[in-house]
Amino acid sequence: MKKLNLFSLTLILILSEIINPAIAQNRARPVKSPEVLPDNSVVFRLYAPDAKTIKVTGTFMDLTKNIEMVKGDTGVFEAKSAPLPSDMYVYVFIVDGVKMPDPNNNIVVRDGSYIESRLMIPGEQADLYDVKDVPHGVVSAVWYQSPIIGMSRRMIIYTPPGYNKSKDSYPVLYLLHGGGGDEEGWTSRGRANYILDNLIAAGKAKPMIIVMTNGIPANAGSPGDRPLSTILKKVDTSTPSAMTTGKFEESLVKDVIPFIESNYRVKANPDNRAIAGLSMGGYHTQKITNANPGEFNYIGVMSMGLYNMFGPYDKEQHIAQLKALNASHPKLYFIGCGKTDFLYKGVTDLRALYDEVGFKYTYRESEGGHSWNNWRLYLSELAPKLFRE
Amino acid sequence: MKKLNLFSLTLILILSEIINPAIAQNRARPVKSPEVLPDNSVVFRLYAPDAKTIKVTGTFMDLTKNIEMVKGDTGVFEAKSAPLPSDMYVYVFIVDGVKMPDPNNNIVVRDGSYIESRLMIPGEQADLYDVKDVPHGVVSAVWYQSPIIGMSRRMIIYTPPGYNKSKDSYPVLYLLHGGGGDEEGWTSRGRANYILDNLIAAGKAKPMIIVMTNGIPANAGSPGDRPLSTILKKVDTSTPSAMTTGKFEESLVKDVIPFIESNYRVKANPDNRAIAGLSMGGYHTQKITNANPGEFNYIGVMSMGLYNMFGPYDKEQHIAQLKALNASHPKLYFIGCGKTDFLYKGVTDLRALYDEVGFKYTYRESEGGHSWNNWRLYLSELAPKLFRE
Repeated sequence: MKKLNLFSLTLILILSEIINPAIAQNRARPVKSPEVLPDNSVVFRLYAPDAKTIKVTGTFMDLTKNIEMVKGDTGVFEAKSAPLPSDMYVYVFIVDGVKMPDPNNNIVVRDGSYIESRLMIPGEQADLYDVKDVPHGVVSAVWYQSPIIGMSRRMIIYTPPGYNKSKDSYPVLYLLHGGGGDEEGWTSRGRANYILDNLIAAGKAKPMIIVMTNGIPANAGSPGDRPLSTILKKVDTSTPSAMTTGKFEESLVKDVIPFIESNYRVKANPDNRAIAGLSMGGYHTQKITNANPGEFNYIGVMSMGLYNMFGPYDKEQHIAQLKALNASHPKLYFIGCGKTDFLYKGVTDLRALYDEVGFKYTYRESEGGHSWNNWRLYLSELAPKLFRE
Repeated sequence: MKKLNLFSLTLILILSEIINPAIAQNRARPVKSPEVLPDNSVVFRLYAPDAKTIKVTGTFMDLTKNIEMVKGDTGVFEAKSAPLPSDMYVYVFIVDGVKMPDPNNNIVVRDGSYIESRLMIPGEQADLYDVKDVPHGVVSAVWYQSPIIGMSRRMIIYTPPGYNKSKDSYPVLYLLHGGGGDEEGWTSRGRANYILDNLIAAGKAKPMIIVMTNGIPANAGSPGDRPLSTILKKVDTSTPSAMTTGKFEESLVKDVIPFIESNYRVKANPDNRAIAGLSMGGYHTQKITNANPGEFNYIGVMSMGLYNMFGPYDKEQHIAQLKALNASHPKLYFIGCGKTDFLYKGVTDLRALYDEVGFKYTYRESEGGHSWNNWRLYLSELAPKLFRE
């Protein structure tokens, strides 16, 4: 028995966080957090005997508010949410004023600089975003040359189940992230790959390739995948000039699409080419499709309205572009917006302009606001409509 | 001008963290952290007017210690490290007793449940791990069927620059993670893809495929890529029984290698098949190569010694296996260990046994301990030795 105990002890040493004492200290008293109860309410816990106040906030509630966690005798703070609708959420703890992910939850999702803990509430909506027992596509990080932007850049490419073994060619959806995000957002927080796996397995969407680019011309890729020299410089990419150069839009058409069409088995024609984006990506989608009528026959604009706020705006030019785009007869022009989106008025203005011009579109108004909950929902509704004839 | 200001304001709203009020609160006063000074000392900062004490600790120092951060008049805590050798490190803040990543650093790296902030100190070592202006391979997340384990599982595959356009076949390195880790460890914290990009570009390593599996049979994949049902169950994979079933070792040989050799352009022979692993992965490497002499002609054991601590140990069988392995004439058997590794004695025992049996190996003893700093170093030294005649 002595020997067996030694086995176990050493094994636990090797396996456990004792390998990393910094973490071992942190995890001195692991607690179960988050705990999803049978009614889909959630208990959040954190062991923090030396903290004064801890709050929890997340996308399952009004983000300007938070829930005060109550300190128990053992030094564990605890709070319970209301029963939550099935969906994917993110949350953070606020420990004596400082926000942090939940250290007992090893699932963090990143969108740009937002690093938060994930919470998935089971049910119908989560089923769309979950890893199900269905064939899975491949998600690849791929570098390509962008002569337009003048650097080697990184993108994420989803190839559908069966792509590698098949000799078929596939349609392509170019899927663009929002301001502050990067090429990993649509898979990390957007679950685009699992949404498509599930829709394809259910026969609801056609197998397609999804290309997820980085929309900030100053960045080669997501934070951890940029050259160190640019990280040390801390290039500020959140300024208007970083995003309204037009360089990303130009590079998508001149660099990205040719790269995809020469490196992947692609149906390289407008009926098999879709583009969609959220927020800043919805702006990019508009700019790209307005300037290239007839090149994308499926278009999706999520949570982005009229772009008269982005630098000098030429309404006559916009109308002329919309008329040309309309004349190219795109098969789908989807606009999605949440009722409480802070860009709701801009979306209303965009629709008014489209109506004025007689430009046809499909409008989807959902609950909620400018959030990934809506963008995942829109993708799950948009993908089934793509590449139909 | 009024109009331009409105442009900018709205744009900043769209781009900035105001989209996500939870984060906006957190980032009420962004500070520069970490700041690498010209002498490669580092200043860490955190704005936390309501916190009592904040400390910083990381792999650049003795992890059982930490540096107290000093609170300034403005509510910003600050600490400065000694000048650091060029390398990649991780660190965390301890805010009133609770560990967290640095909220002003958008580069977090995850290894299993360890979610920490990254710090790269420029210079010779960082150059090996950095994103350089060289051709980059593709990193893919791929699902495969494992009949041995009885589930669909996820692995990460690196294909070298030029793979997609080439018709050549390539050698393969199977690269295994440690206890508590998962299939993403070798790219997230290990930088294996960039290490190979840089070595291949310099002509120091042959172009090769790297296959990074998940070594815990109970898990389909990394935390965010497991079915929700298994996440809610919170399967405990840190117990000895979760890792010593032998199922992973069997599945690598019977499921993974056949999948790779039938789905990728691979030189499917022992001279072009290597295997290496760290800690638990070094245990798996030993078990797999001992049981399959002649199948892998390049073998690397990092920070793992004699496995007499892993359940019943049969020395006679071990010696018989080593003799058979020796008789198969592997071209390289690399053992790497840090001088302060807590498994140093086990590695010494392993070498003593190998010497006793006359089993040939190459031994690399480095500074430091059981750490990714060593595992990245070993990979950068091991890769150039692989697939040489």
